[in-house]
Amino acid sequence: MSTPAAELRSIERRNDSSIHVLDQRLLPFREEWLPLSTLEQVADAISAMVVRGAPLIGVTAAYGVWIGGREAMREDRDRMERFEGGQMITTLQAIASRLLATRPTAVNLRWGIERQIERAAEGVADGLEPAAILEQLRIEADRIAEEDVAACRSIGEHGLELIREMAARKKSDDPVRIATHCNAGRLACVAWGTATAPIYRAHLEGIPIEVWVDETRPRLQGARLTAWEMASAGIPHRVIVDGAAGLMMRRRLVDMVIVGCDRMAANGDTCNKIGTYPLALAARDNDLPFYVALPESTIDRRMADGDRIPIEERDDAEVRSIVGADGTTVEITGEASPVANPAFDVTPARLVTAIITEKGVRSAP
Amino acid sequence: MSTPAAELRSIERRNDSSIHVLDQRLLPFREEWLPLSTLEQVADAISAMVVRGAPLIGVTAAYGVWIGGREAMREDRDRMERFEGGQMITTLQAIASRLLATRPTAVNLRWGIERQIERAAEGVADGLEPAAILEQLRIEADRIAEEDVAACRSIGEHGLELIREMAARKKSDDPVRIATHCNAGRLACVAWGTATAPIYRAHLEGIPIEVWVDETRPRLQGARLTAWEMASAGIPHRVIVDGAAGLMMRRRLVDMVIVGCDRMAANGDTCNKIGTYPLALAARDNDLPFYVALPESTIDRRMADGDRIPIEERDDAEVRSIVGADGTTVEITGEASPVANPAFDVTPARLVTAIITEKGVRSAP
Repeated sequence: MSTPAAELRSIERRNDSSIHVLDQRLLPFREEWLPLSTLEQVADAISAMVVRGAPLIGVTAAYGVWIGGREAMREDRDRMERFEGGQMITTLQAIASRLLATRPTAVNLRWGIERQIERAAEGVADGLEPAAILEQLRIEADRIAEEDVAACRSIGEHGLELIREMAARKKSDDPVRIATHCNAGRLACVAWGTATAPIYRAHLEGIPIEVWVDETRPRLQGARLTAWEMASAGIPHRVIVDGAAGLMMRRRLVDMVIVGCDRMAANGDTCNKIGTYPLALAARDNDLPFYVALPESTIDRRMADGDRIPIEERDDAEVRSIVGADGTTVEITGEASPVANPAFDVTPARLVTAIITEKGVRSAP
Repeated sequence: MSTPAAELRSIERRNDSSIHVLDQRLLPFREEWLPLSTLEQVADAISAMVVRGAPLIGVTAAYGVWIGGREAMREDRDRMERFEGGQMITTLQAIASRLLATRPTAVNLRWGIERQIERAAEGVADGLEPAAILEQLRIEADRIAEEDVAACRSIGEHGLELIREMAARKKSDDPVRIATHCNAGRLACVAWGTATAPIYRAHLEGIPIEVWVDETRPRLQGARLTAWEMASAGIPHRVIVDGAAGLMMRRRLVDMVIVGCDRMAANGDTCNKIGTYPLALAARDNDLPFYVALPESTIDRRMADGDRIPIEERDDAEVRSIVGADGTTVEITGEASPVANPAFDVTPARLVTAIITEKGVRSAP
């Protein structure tokens, strides 16, 4: 039996010196894997959104600390003092700063990096050699990746119950209709995805499912990534413009919403791809459950509420132009008009019916 | 002094046999006027959205009845009996059916056509010759166009008061920040626009204004038409993706919303471009006034509520692909994924703070 689509990986460590990532800028039109073997390659891959999605950013950055450390050690072979004691930590912290600067919103980035710095500090405290510490960082990054797979699988199990309950209320052949935004799929994680994990699980269980996929301007991760994932897994779905989900709800064509999250504040405020907040408002106005699926690592307990979460402003070009299947870029707005391009918005906790994490389903973090 | 941008026309009758319309598919990249001198040209211009916007569709269709009548008379010069008495009405009704079939949602289409059929029936009852009746239809279409200009100018006067009140509550240099969706501008009408009329008026009065322009997928009438109008008139504005308006409201960067309307039901339910409903929800969630600007002719008193309004489903290609500035079409979604493309949604009357018509500002139609 072939691997279910849900379990395919979006990041792989195929050797002891680099990682390979699926270039998400080219999907659904081309499947190309990109090797990353230097700090700058990893940082660029994150900021250019070769990889994206809070969990995957965290995993990639964790590997980035290891890759950056290897690179620094190689370059400084004759100045090994940089790798003794506190000096090694200083070097790794510079690497961490470079990685942290790539994208400000997803908390998993910081989480993955800090976990690596802590790991290195333990190695130093244990008196390990630099090479042994780097080995620890590689092992830790692998562990973070596998933990992410396990967390997503577990999110799938817990979310499956919510879908099962909805299915039980319907006629046997009527599908459970789920709306989602952006891509909180396997491509946003190592495998399974967050919002998609319950969908994949329900589909594998034989529960009929239909997914409404918001295209998700400006970068169209819904139309390009989530739609591709659903098509690859054989899950019935339809792509709509972001403004159309509310109408589908008013027409009673949606049973529930499941979205991912880039950072959740301690009070449950949910920072996610721009357009999530209006989707949550539409769900509330139509008495539909609005679920946020996320690993616990996406909860930022240092952040009291969502209004303090830094929102990344991305390049105007993402709004002004669109890159097509063949790589052609077309302009869609007149040059005389300025644009604004915030990448995320904040959905207040009061609009979130429940969160689905690897620990279970609950109403607040 | 040159004509203010608000007063420029989007449709002109330059001679006694055709009309000229600004080809809105090419804006903001090219300004080209298209002559329409046959029924099929008029019908195609409406369905292909060379012209669009409820009021302009109504005016164009009114001219279309005249143009179609002229054409039929020319073709049937030796069978003039078709133009005697009831036969002429039958011919005009066939023309009306062709025009009515172009777009189902905007009520102004039906309104403009029915007004012409009534005018012709009066002519028949008065014993006028076919040529004289056609002359009446030309005069009536001109009158409908001028009435639209007058109605929009009046909407501008009434809406100006709402903006003035908002400006009075601010520090003198702080702009009134208005969010709008799609294009309910001069391009959607003959001149001035509906939602933009108060904006143009306020700007001409020297009240500082800033406009948030939703790009309005799938056809991008915000990014292309409203942004072009604002730039042409020198009104500060910024284009955002449709999902971003809610965030701007949460950041307190919006003072009010003004949108247009394609058909308002008798109870005030507002059918407008897809994405209007989530914008209204966001306005409500942030205690911001949500105004609908429309001529009285857009109110359909035969339609009890908005859920009965037929919603046009347009071609998948509008979601699947985008045409750029240079005319290049690029694909944005994988072929394996089906799409849905409803052109309008319905905002329940409870979310509408007030409507602005040529008669004034009031809470329900």
